[in-house]
Amino acid sequence: MQILTTAAALHAYTETARRAGQRVGLVPTMGALHDGHLQLVQAARAQCNVVVASIFVNPTQFNNAEDFRLYPRVPEADAALLAPAGCTALFTPSVEEMYPRPTVLRFDFGDLERVMEGAHRPGHFNGVATVVSKLFHMARPHQAFFGQKDWQQVAIIRQLVADLSFDLEIVTCPTIREADGLAMSSRNCRLDAPARAVAPLLHQVLEAAAAQVRQGVPPAQVKAAADATLAAEPLLTPEYVEVADAETLQPLDVYAPGRAVVLCLAAHLGGVRLIDNVVVE
Amino acid sequence: MQILTTAAALHAYTETARRAGQRVGLVPTMGALHDGHLQLVQAARAQCNVVVASIFVNPTQFNNAEDFRLYPRVPEADAALLAPAGCTALFTPSVEEMYPRPTVLRFDFGDLERVMEGAHRPGHFNGVATVVSKLFHMARPHQAFFGQKDWQQVAIIRQLVADLSFDLEIVTCPTIREADGLAMSSRNCRLDAPARAVAPLLHQVLEAAAAQVRQGVPPAQVKAAADATLAAEPLLTPEYVEVADAETLQPLDVYAPGRAVVLCLAAHLGGVRLIDNVVVE
Repeated sequence: MQILTTAAALHAYTETARRAGQRVGLVPTMGALHDGHLQLVQAARAQCNVVVASIFVNPTQFNNAEDFRLYPRVPEADAALLAPAGCTALFTPSVEEMYPRPTVLRFDFGDLERVMEGAHRPGHFNGVATVVSKLFHMARPHQAFFGQKDWQQVAIIRQLVADLSFDLEIVTCPTIREADGLAMSSRNCRLDAPARAVAPLLHQVLEAAAAQVRQGVPPAQVKAAADATLAAEPLLTPEYVEVADAETLQPLDVYAPGRAVVLCLAAHLGGVRLIDNVVVE
Repeated sequence: MQILTTAAALHAYTETARRAGQRVGLVPTMGALHDGHLQLVQAARAQCNVVVASIFVNPTQFNNAEDFRLYPRVPEADAALLAPAGCTALFTPSVEEMYPRPTVLRFDFGDLERVMEGAHRPGHFNGVATVVSKLFHMARPHQAFFGQKDWQQVAIIRQLVADLSFDLEIVTCPTIREADGLAMSSRNCRLDAPARAVAPLLHQVLEAAAAQVRQGVPPAQVKAAADATLAAEPLLTPEYVEVADAETLQPLDVYAPGRAVVLCLAAHLGGVRLIDNVVVE
């Protein structure tokens, strides 16, 4: 596995692969890798000859400076996990390499970012769209792989790709969970024992809500039940629970026939902010 | 010269060229070609093996529906001019090909678009940045060529390329003028004889202002003199005259040592809106 730290080196690497007729897969990450990330790398390797994983804790997508500071960084451990999973090149640029000058351009994704993560993390999706655009231009992949856990992020990136006619395919892989249902996240390692014990409640609430959606319980009632369960746990501070259209992400008053529903939540637990979602087809 | 009408055909064309180690130049236009456009094609051919000219009257950059409707469209005449100038492929997509679905994403370039064209044509630069991003992704040029006449547009596109790390170089070519100084523009053919007779005044005003800037006349005084000259011509309705920093495009109160100045104006003349600029280094 090659280690690349500059845009020029990454570009040369993937351009050489493309000229040789090889397919290039990209797995953008912020490091502190877990099985969810490795599954993305494996999926990429199954479909591409060359797999670039990037590790870059992107400052422009953090609306909270403390969250940025505390975001786990374990570069050696990450590198050791990537090669066995099928990664052929690891891209680890510095902040200066990615942002040689301050960015002026701002993205607005309209209603798609007025809800959930976009509403609670001002500027977050502008930072995501900016860094993802940069990585797409530097790596120029045929396919880029993202996890379903960041459902709204994937929706934003799909819109970005469609609206700017990026010549690549977005592949979404299922959320990988711990045995007790907790969605894998780089932030999980910051949970202390009491918080970790409570954390599976998030997925339990989503599964209970999904069962209600399948039974046709109205969205407001589903949301109220989930809110009540979360509120009853003293260690948890819920941020939002939404019953939304899976594609438009807009909250639902009623279910529309034939359209998938996504149940999303965010909550603070022991100083850590966690998100999760379940899709009901 | 090949004629391509789909993104897939364009992409295949330039990908084949790239795989063969050839350099790709792109000249985005809205057609109704004049010597200014042809100079861009010639500049591209001098530096690239393959030159793609696009002709697409982009609806999303017109804030005025009548201007869009009346924009000259002469595809056969344009095609006849391009091959002799060195164009190897003409890309003429339909609106449906460029915009299969309505665009959700909006760009904001901050102060760079709060002035001049951006201030007077709401949404214009969002449309420009969108279509230029699409063309860059479809053609994937090594270099893209733009005319200095659209100074602010070039500034916006340079910012777009820098902020999203597009892997290409922007080349700006000088404004080409008629013998009497009128900047060549596709809209000039809509001027009737009396309007055409007055039109060179725009460049005369800019040259007079440039002479004052070189003499150190304060910006407010330069602007006032230009405003007065334009106001004295009954056929003209001036929209703005600005004495601005050539890079930031912000209006100047005083000159900063070592920084270039751009003099820009827009005016309506016989139902046609014209712009022009002169740079003082």
